[in-house]
Amino acid sequence: MTATPGLIPRGARNPGSQGALRHLNQERLVEFLLANGPSTQAELARGTGLSTATVSNIVRDMAAKGVVATSPVTSSGRRALLVQLTDTGDVAVGVDFGRRHVRIVLATLGYDVIAEEQVALEPGYDVLGAVREASGLLDRMLVEGGHDRESVLAVGVGIPGPIDRRTGTVLQGAILPEWVGITRRELEDVFGFPVMVDNDANLGALAEVTWGANRGERNIIFVKIGTGIGAGLILNGQPYYGFLGITGELGHTPVAEHGVICRCGNRGCLETVASTSVMLESLGRGTGAAVTTADILRRGLDKDPAVLRVVSDAGTAIGRAIGNIANVINPELVLIGGPLVGLGDALLDPIRHGIQHNALPIIAGTTSVRVSSLGDRAESLGAAAIVIQGALAGNE
Amino acid sequence: MTATPGLIPRGARNPGSQGALRHLNQERLVEFLLANGPSTQAELARGTGLSTATVSNIVRDMAAKGVVATSPVTSSGRRALLVQLTDTGDVAVGVDFGRRHVRIVLATLGYDVIAEEQVALEPGYDVLGAVREASGLLDRMLVEGGHDRESVLAVGVGIPGPIDRRTGTVLQGAILPEWVGITRRELEDVFGFPVMVDNDANLGALAEVTWGANRGERNIIFVKIGTGIGAGLILNGQPYYGFLGITGELGHTPVAEHGVICRCGNRGCLETVASTSVMLESLGRGTGAAVTTADILRRGLDKDPAVLRVVSDAGTAIGRAIGNIANVINPELVLIGGPLVGLGDALLDPIRHGIQHNALPIIAGTTSVRVSSLGDRAESLGAAAIVIQGALAGNE
Repeated sequence: MTATPGLIPRGARNPGSQGALRHLNQERLVEFLLANGPSTQAELARGTGLSTATVSNIVRDMAAKGVVATSPVTSSGRRALLVQLTDTGDVAVGVDFGRRHVRIVLATLGYDVIAEEQVALEPGYDVLGAVREASGLLDRMLVEGGHDRESVLAVGVGIPGPIDRRTGTVLQGAILPEWVGITRRELEDVFGFPVMVDNDANLGALAEVTWGANRGERNIIFVKIGTGIGAGLILNGQPYYGFLGITGELGHTPVAEHGVICRCGNRGCLETVASTSVMLESLGRGTGAAVTTADILRRGLDKDPAVLRVVSDAGTAIGRAIGNIANVINPELVLIGGPLVGLGDALLDPIRHGIQHNALPIIAGTTSVRVSSLGDRAESLGAAAIVIQGALAGNE
Repeated sequence: MTATPGLIPRGARNPGSQGALRHLNQERLVEFLLANGPSTQAELARGTGLSTATVSNIVRDMAAKGVVATSPVTSSGRRALLVQLTDTGDVAVGVDFGRRHVRIVLATLGYDVIAEEQVALEPGYDVLGAVREASGLLDRMLVEGGHDRESVLAVGVGIPGPIDRRTGTVLQGAILPEWVGITRRELEDVFGFPVMVDNDANLGALAEVTWGANRGERNIIFVKIGTGIGAGLILNGQPYYGFLGITGELGHTPVAEHGVICRCGNRGCLETVASTSVMLESLGRGTGAAVTTADILRRGLDKDPAVLRVVSDAGTAIGRAIGNIANVINPELVLIGGPLVGLGDALLDPIRHGIQHNALPIIAGTTSVRVSSLGDRAESLGAAAIVIQGALAGNE
């Protein structure tokens, strides 16, 4: 038998496209400069493993954008070019909309946080009203910091819902139904700046490997446990978006064959048994008083049996769903975010137990489970990170 | 299912590393040359988007390895360097061990199949005996083709079991228990060539985007339904290996809370209800006669109700497990491989139904489900592909 050769090239149609490679390489140079201070091009090449030709190409581009400044120096008796990050004055904005808050950070291209504020939003807030409120807060932060509007590169916005990357539209499944159908364009109209949108859990994952304690980890599942349960993925060291951008929908793993109908349209999803809302409802039932996540934290730390049981059942269910995914993507690290992470091992142990239940022993035994290193700042920092990365990549 | 140590490293040791980038870039140049024939360096740069410096660096390397030849020409009145792929005479070998067969392909660096043979193995074969048999077959194929041993770059070997990439060792969970503990080294001792090992489903996935009809697809789950149920992943256009290389273990998704103990050590795994062995056993029960996969194919195409029911139940269970994964990795394409693909929609429809049951409507509605384009050749072609890719990457 003979065979049809692979004649048409493996269509690396666009995979690992030039833009993506350049972006990776630029990021590496910026990281090296952040860690090591001003460096010669030869040092950059040695320190990053990039070729001198690549280094000098990228340095030239970044110098043209004003991200770095170069100056001739003498190194070991030879002429060399010293490269240093410049303070361009450019501002990357990260905005995180939660169910009850909006948080804004301003940051430099060098990943320095310049300003950071959070305000509460009414439960069930009007979405465009909240966006206008955030826009007002941003304007005030810019004025107070003495940043003119031209210095704003873009506004990264994290939204608690799935987003179709083809159109920048929020899809059904968002925590607040009002978010559904909102587009990037509408946000740009309100903010008056270019806007980049992403799902909150994706941004949390990105923040962990850009700002957080987990830089250098290659394969991470970041699971945000809140009113919704969503995951963001870092695979091969990069944020992973899949076909449409609708990744990490862990909360919609069916776990109860004849369970209740979920807001996604399916039945018995993980979110219908393990979200914080479900936990609050279970604990409030029959007490006549509303239970808050702050109550769960306080009572959980006091070892209240009802709270521990509810958290244990939810954590185990979430862990089982994570275990199924870990069998397939074999991450080194599972990070847990959301309002309950203050419970520590009372939350993590059931999750670990659930992972052990569903994952192959070797997977369960080699996957670390920890809480997010950035707490409630993760999503807003991730939102600023997509702006910084976009700027460094030159939107190629 | 699983994984690999590609020991001739596809430098993905620490991806995004210089080796990995170089590898991607080299691959792109080779693809362009395969599609467009001899080209000048300027054409290569324009056609691939790579910088001229990168192109000339890589061309120099490839010329040193003899993969391309260069010759000065005049193009638009200027001096230029023409680059063309050379027939190096190098041979990449792909070997696929199944439960009852071994298949070998010989291929050129240009993805041309030179020779291809398959022989049957006894059920429950002695593993090292089968490896020796394969080695004898390979030696005969080389002699018949007039290839001296020095022309063999390496032997890629596909194994139906999870492989720990850190050590190149087959782990518990392999279809034949005898494979467990076998190392790349042992295979090298028998073959007398450098060996790269990988899991069969991973190789099937790779083959689809190198040799198959799905070049250019970026995010694929390739599911092999056989005695085991394993998946190989292409994510962002590249084979995905995760932390240890133990990816795609879809067959070990628990689906029956109090089900039977699985060979992986867990309980009620998908494989215990939906593998071909379970289907054969169900259909043979009480008949006193052994049922084969060929019987399932024949009777299924004749619309035998018992066969259709068994295939439908298994397909639905597999589809549900795929649906959970699709919610998280949002692939554009699910490819089904294994001995039952001849059933066509009688197998695919239950899988689609299972995906619809578990996946978000937008995910289920945008994920195509098709049969493998390469049939039983996929794994051996994938095994040759890892050798070709390793050689083009220059073992960096």
